[in-house]
Amino acid sequence: MSGNLFVITAPSGAGKTSMVRELLSADSNIQLSISYTTRPPRPGEVNGTDYHFISEDTFLSMLEKGEFLESAEVYGNRYGTSHTWISQKMESGTDILLEIDWQGAAQVRKIFPETLGIFILPPSLEALRDRLKNRSQDSAEVIERRMQAAREDISHVGEFDYVIINNDFKAAVQDLLAVVRASRLTTRKQLARHSNLLTQLK
Amino acid sequence: MSGNLFVITAPSGAGKTSMVRELLSADSNIQLSISYTTRPPRPGEVNGTDYHFISEDTFLSMLEKGEFLESAEVYGNRYGTSHTWISQKMESGTDILLEIDWQGAAQVRKIFPETLGIFILPPSLEALRDRLKNRSQDSAEVIERRMQAAREDISHVGEFDYVIINNDFKAAVQDLLAVVRASRLTTRKQLARHSNLLTQLK
Repeated sequence: MSGNLFVITAPSGAGKTSMVRELLSADSNIQLSISYTTRPPRPGEVNGTDYHFISEDTFLSMLEKGEFLESAEVYGNRYGTSHTWISQKMESGTDILLEIDWQGAAQVRKIFPETLGIFILPPSLEALRDRLKNRSQDSAEVIERRMQAAREDISHVGEFDYVIINNDFKAAVQDLLAVVRASRLTTRKQLARHSNLLTQLK
Repeated sequence: MSGNLFVITAPSGAGKTSMVRELLSADSNIQLSISYTTRPPRPGEVNGTDYHFISEDTFLSMLEKGEFLESAEVYGNRYGTSHTWISQKMESGTDILLEIDWQGAAQVRKIFPETLGIFILPPSLEALRDRLKNRSQDSAEVIERRMQAAREDISHVGEFDYVIINNDFKAAVQDLLAVVRASRLTTRKQLARHSNLLTQLK
């Protein structure tokens, strides 16, 4: 039997990170994949918790050996998701969650076609703009650039399996928990998990 | 937009009826379809709540007009599910739940291929036998007949989308709630329900 692989994607400001934190604290059978990155740690960030901080050389060597399920370069920094770690965890029955963007999600889907994609939406463009304004000291220009990026992200919503609208935060977290829980109850998963029971019942 | 159609099936004694009662009281957007039957009401049964009690003539006339989504004859009594009522409710966005056996589920699937089938299993054959013994004064022979019927039911589990094992009742109810909740969050359902939001966000 094997765990499920989830990717969760959202425009910046939709509340994805807080939702994921609640999911991980409420559900002990799902683990967040920790990305590898070449960018230096920010104050407070912990190696192995927030990211695996590695050198450019190490990253390139891992990339060459095909150890990344997906990888990207953003503003000159590299980010990657370990294929090996995820495969091992899934084989042991643990569900894995990747917090990545739609491009990363598309890369993952090619390798694991059964990946379950979850897209988080804000309740409106105004709400998104308000959240971006409230959480940073960014200039109006930077915020507008983020809004433009959000529109681009949202245009890919159709590539995902589930859509959760983060209007009421608690309800959105319950939605996320329900999607993860239900995904373990599909007949295929259950017959694999409980093959002894089914053999006995037949 | 339209509601989802669920069929829920279980061998006698698996705890389906109690689980359905909890689901209906916890989730106000799903309604149980009330079957039509020609069998006389048992003491305490209410017309329109437990069943629509109708005459054989009325049943046959409804059957002729194609008003039943599925129907069956059991021990000389007829049972049927109204197609019209379900279609109207679903069009208004309400989810509908049918408590039927695997044969009924197969009939419904032919007409509504997107029906979501949920199968409830007992944790073991011994647990099922114990429950059948505890809840009735039936003879050992009757109980063994029910056990045989249960095995026959369970052999059809692969025709269903989800399997819930009723070992811990509360956990099984949470499973059922999660399946129903998650089914509303598929991208197709969400895009239909929130088409205005999506148009605005693009």
